[in-house]
Amino acid sequence: MNWYGGVEAGGTKFNCIVGSDPDNILEEARIRTTTPAETLPQVVDFFEWTQHKHRISLEAIGLGFFGPISLDPAANDFGYITSTPKLPWRNTPIVSYFKEKMDLPIAFDTDVAAAAVGEGLWGAARGCKHFIYITVGTGVGGGVINDGKPLHGQIHPEIGHMFLPHDLKKDPFEGFCPSHKDCLEGLVSGPAIKARWGQPAETLPADHPAWDLESDYMSYALANLIVSFSPERIILGGGVMKIPGLIEQIRTKTLSKLNGYVQNENLIHNTKEFIQLPGLADRAGTLGSIALAQTVA
Amino acid sequence: MNWYGGVEAGGTKFNCIVGSDPDNILEEARIRTTTPAETLPQVVDFFEWTQHKHRISLEAIGLGFFGPISLDPAANDFGYITSTPKLPWRNTPIVSYFKEKMDLPIAFDTDVAAAAVGEGLWGAARGCKHFIYITVGTGVGGGVINDGKPLHGQIHPEIGHMFLPHDLKKDPFEGFCPSHKDCLEGLVSGPAIKARWGQPAETLPADHPAWDLESDYMSYALANLIVSFSPERIILGGGVMKIPGLIEQIRTKTLSKLNGYVQNENLIHNTKEFIQLPGLADRAGTLGSIALAQTVA
Repeated sequence: MNWYGGVEAGGTKFNCIVGSDPDNILEEARIRTTTPAETLPQVVDFFEWTQHKHRISLEAIGLGFFGPISLDPAANDFGYITSTPKLPWRNTPIVSYFKEKMDLPIAFDTDVAAAAVGEGLWGAARGCKHFIYITVGTGVGGGVINDGKPLHGQIHPEIGHMFLPHDLKKDPFEGFCPSHKDCLEGLVSGPAIKARWGQPAETLPADHPAWDLESDYMSYALANLIVSFSPERIILGGGVMKIPGLIEQIRTKTLSKLNGYVQNENLIHNTKEFIQLPGLADRAGTLGSIALAQTVA
Repeated sequence: MNWYGGVEAGGTKFNCIVGSDPDNILEEARIRTTTPAETLPQVVDFFEWTQHKHRISLEAIGLGFFGPISLDPAANDFGYITSTPKLPWRNTPIVSYFKEKMDLPIAFDTDVAAAAVGEGLWGAARGCKHFIYITVGTGVGGGVINDGKPLHGQIHPEIGHMFLPHDLKKDPFEGFCPSHKDCLEGLVSGPAIKARWGQPAETLPADHPAWDLESDYMSYALANLIVSFSPERIILGGGVMKIPGLIEQIRTKTLSKLNGYVQNENLIHNTKEFIQLPGLADRAGTLGSIALAQTVA
């Protein structure tokens, strides 16, 4: 069996994993996100210790990171975290650090692209070449797979910051994004819901008007993603998407907004498959990092 | 010199061309779009006649078509126009028709993808791997180039039908898209402008309030395209984009809406290059069809 190391690096913690696939996981560790000088050596230690303990050699390492990150191999700052608001991490070389310490093939991408790769390999998008993974939690992020590979463009997508119709009569909340106020993230993220209603999303009952608004905005976002990328599937992850009944509302409203314009048979006739929760549930990001590693092994 | 045939196929006319590049065009013809049985043989005749007259052999043919079209080589209807509202053309095999009549390599894509390919080869996006061509005229269409190739997804993008913020206090016009009312196309196309103001776009003076609204919506659309695709450049074609001063307003408002969130150096410091008119002007579509041909020759 081939073994891979993976890191899902977020603003509060690094979820580290060594495994082969969802059914063959050797070790996992959670490391606090403090500074690069503190956090990164602990990740390397975890990989070294796991290899030693289990007498294995890793084939490759997959790094799914919070952004913005530089993914262009031709750029001077390739493999860096760049202009992040998390100041200790700004302009930090990540790929070269791991390359130097571990001398293994390194795959580097956004956390959401890694989750998308994982869903494509083992989860809800198996067999799909074109799909999108969206996560709605503390923020809103999106990973796009086009022709079987993460789409980067010049930097990488920042789908959470899309602008959408916002009916101030129905929803006078001005939005919670520090940069854009009422972009998608500013309207639907966990903190936006808490700011709008004065209580955390998970404490709002399933029949609370919050979810009518949430499904309105999410269905506008999905309609925009569908007309932009023409995906085969959209996967909705993150804590907020687990509210019972929410994904059903999003499916219905997405179809209604597109109004038959996009003649995608699967979208229209098999909407439950087209718009899905992650097959890997909460482990999409962590398992995605070892799926990502397999793309360079 | 290598010669290519090209067709920019629209709802009212087929612009046909034989040439090598923008400086070497042998022949052009405009054929009315009536029915496939009438129009398609005239296109083949034009190519045959040009080859005979100039004693050349074409290397390949590029077809940039109105949609929706089927671009998935694995699909049963590959190379067809599919569910178009132009009824005589619904479910018409295009690629197989030309293949049978001419026995040449055929490149088939949307008219806007062909225009994008042309802009990449000879126009405003030379040297770019990731860019978007948008046309605003009778409708709104968009061709996306990712990693140097037209992005298709499962079908192809329909960017004109993106949903955007629409402040009904500032602009009470309900929108003109038959499917979605106030999607991008329903707010900014030529017919939408005419319906909103009661006169054609080209008769409205440069200081008319129409252009403030037009640049508002276009800049929301561009911001959404930037956060979705992370392009290196966006090219704005079509008749409506020629209004003096309009593109400057769109540039300013796009930056203002993104509010520094996307740290793309070229977008921020070289916005005139990032958001441009087509280098091939009105010939982006027609020349694009021979650029498209060169991708399969």
